[in-house]
Amino acid sequence: MIDLNRRGVVLAAGSAITLSAAGLPVMAATPDRKLGYAIVGLGGYGLGIIIPQFKNCQHSKLVALVSGDPVKARRVAAEYGVPERSIYDYKNFDSIKDNPDIDVVYVCLPVSMHAEYTIRAAAAGKHVMCEKPMAVSSAECEAMIAACKKAGKKLMIGYRCHFEPYNLEARRRARAGEIGKLRYFRSEHGFTAGNPNSWRLKKAMSGGGSLMDIGIYALNAARYMTAEEPVSVYAKETTDRNDPRFREVEDMIEFQLEFPSGVIASCMSMYSANQNHILLMGDKGRIDLEPGTRYDGNKLWVGQDRSTPVNPPPGPGATQWSGQLDHLSLCVINNKEPIVPGEEGLRDIRIIEAIYRSAREQKRIALT
Amino acid sequence: MIDLNRRGVVLAAGSAITLSAAGLPVMAATPDRKLGYAIVGLGGYGLGIIIPQFKNCQHSKLVALVSGDPVKARRVAAEYGVPERSIYDYKNFDSIKDNPDIDVVYVCLPVSMHAEYTIRAAAAGKHVMCEKPMAVSSAECEAMIAACKKAGKKLMIGYRCHFEPYNLEARRRARAGEIGKLRYFRSEHGFTAGNPNSWRLKKAMSGGGSLMDIGIYALNAARYMTAEEPVSVYAKETTDRNDPRFREVEDMIEFQLEFPSGVIASCMSMYSANQNHILLMGDKGRIDLEPGTRYDGNKLWVGQDRSTPVNPPPGPGATQWSGQLDHLSLCVINNKEPIVPGEEGLRDIRIIEAIYRSAREQKRIALT
Repeated sequence: MIDLNRRGVVLAAGSAITLSAAGLPVMAATPDRKLGYAIVGLGGYGLGIIIPQFKNCQHSKLVALVSGDPVKARRVAAEYGVPERSIYDYKNFDSIKDNPDIDVVYVCLPVSMHAEYTIRAAAAGKHVMCEKPMAVSSAECEAMIAACKKAGKKLMIGYRCHFEPYNLEARRRARAGEIGKLRYFRSEHGFTAGNPNSWRLKKAMSGGGSLMDIGIYALNAARYMTAEEPVSVYAKETTDRNDPRFREVEDMIEFQLEFPSGVIASCMSMYSANQNHILLMGDKGRIDLEPGTRYDGNKLWVGQDRSTPVNPPPGPGATQWSGQLDHLSLCVINNKEPIVPGEEGLRDIRIIEAIYRSAREQKRIALT
Repeated sequence: MIDLNRRGVVLAAGSAITLSAAGLPVMAATPDRKLGYAIVGLGGYGLGIIIPQFKNCQHSKLVALVSGDPVKARRVAAEYGVPERSIYDYKNFDSIKDNPDIDVVYVCLPVSMHAEYTIRAAAAGKHVMCEKPMAVSSAECEAMIAACKKAGKKLMIGYRCHFEPYNLEARRRARAGEIGKLRYFRSEHGFTAGNPNSWRLKKAMSGGGSLMDIGIYALNAARYMTAEEPVSVYAKETTDRNDPRFREVEDMIEFQLEFPSGVIASCMSMYSANQNHILLMGDKGRIDLEPGTRYDGNKLWVGQDRSTPVNPPPGPGATQWSGQLDHLSLCVINNKEPIVPGEEGLRDIRIIEAIYRSAREQKRIALT
């Protein structure tokens, strides 16, 4: 396990810490140092997306797996060179504390399990990367932050778009004033939910519907791109409760955020159509991303319309995920706070709670 | 002046009334019959846009001018072949009642003058075309409708987009189910207001800011495209009151409409940037217009993205304005109600009043 003091000594001995164009810490002096990650949950995201990304990392490596399916776990372990002794299940999970190979636990579980496994990981002396949404409630988020703080461990939330070149470039240009004074932000995010038995559609496991799963991209982009925190929300939900997919969670929810500068954000989240769009409107032009937050194929235009496509410079990693993974590794190595810490996840969940409340009570909710 | 009874006889004698693809009445049997229009107000729209359109009309002709500027009026009259005796000013306007050439009065004045000149035109026994927004208040709209009803005259509001091929085709495809079940509507409309002394920026003349002038396109499109009436509104205004343009009226206002079917419309209106966009989102695809309501150059895509541009069939007229003008002429000839009567203008103004109230009171306003 990486020890902060030991790392501190390494740094003091002569590492060169610089900042990348994206403002992310880069540590050039430890090219070979890799932190060990345990992936908790071998579902679509953990197995399909995250695990294959370690080959693109400079500071992160896969060292352990946690799964309730021993056959699957052994197969994946064999494929990725994870030793049998580093395969865990949900019962013996806490014994990771005795595994010095594991520096970081990456929680890729249904949302309702995020808090428990983050807190248990911290108690086992591990740093934590937790997928978004951070948890099913702000109370859980607060407990997760407190647990990691108490353990002296980093907590980072998996906001991959903060490491995605098109999003970084859009934000950079907005901040540089390329579209003048920012006035309006808009984002639609949605996909067509298929299987009615998916955990995403079970409220006890997901904490909510499209807003928790895909709408959070619109919400987080609104805060990220404006670099402001909203002062109020208003939301309207529309769900066909006769649709077997939507017996427990919302389909469509439209929410408006008011920012202190006067910027208004209008965001839409849905589970009944594919949407992926971010638009920033200034008094001198627009920044348009469509798709904006996909795994690949994102597109960016800056100007009065879509006549000028922009190819952004590379992001901090070879991919958004390797950038994300290595960021946490470097934060651990350098004892820095991640740019998307637990507090970032908590902010989104607090706003999501206000959005749900606004939709329920049909009124504007002031955010404090 | 065209007399409804005389027209009725003409029709009964053998005219063929059919419906165009857009559902608009077409009267093929009277190709040469043209109603005479008096244009009231020789400003940018009346002089620059409407007057040049009569050459494209089959059933409408320019026969009179009303202006406070006699030099300008004589110049325009000479250019368009309007006899000197058919030039009026605002004092002698009521004497149009004695001019049998005038069938219709087209009110192209600042909004605060719409009610007065509509009511005076009706009292003079003339049909009325009135520009949008219909008036500065719903009370005025109601008075205008009552005046025309009492006089037995048609009242139509200048919603040119109801005669514009791209808008007609977008609506047709939405109604035909080409994007599945409609879920979400979005529209941004705005332009950069320049001259702080423009009547548009004087509340007493305009009745309001961007919402009255350009945002009404987003509002009307939301109602037109969904073919529903909203049941509630919520709105948020943002205006820099230190900007000399916005001392009296709002710059940006974002409003959300809730429709009975569950469709949500999110609309943005502004005077500080150029925007012109209409988007319909169904559970099977999207209908996208950008620009959507311009004088020309509108574009339409139907599908999952913008890969398939659509060229609509021709509209009811050679241009949206000639289609609009001839529609009222045919309604007069055939004694039909216009598709955008005074009641249509009133509906928008009632919703605009609710939008302003919502922004002022920071709460959802139910529409009754």
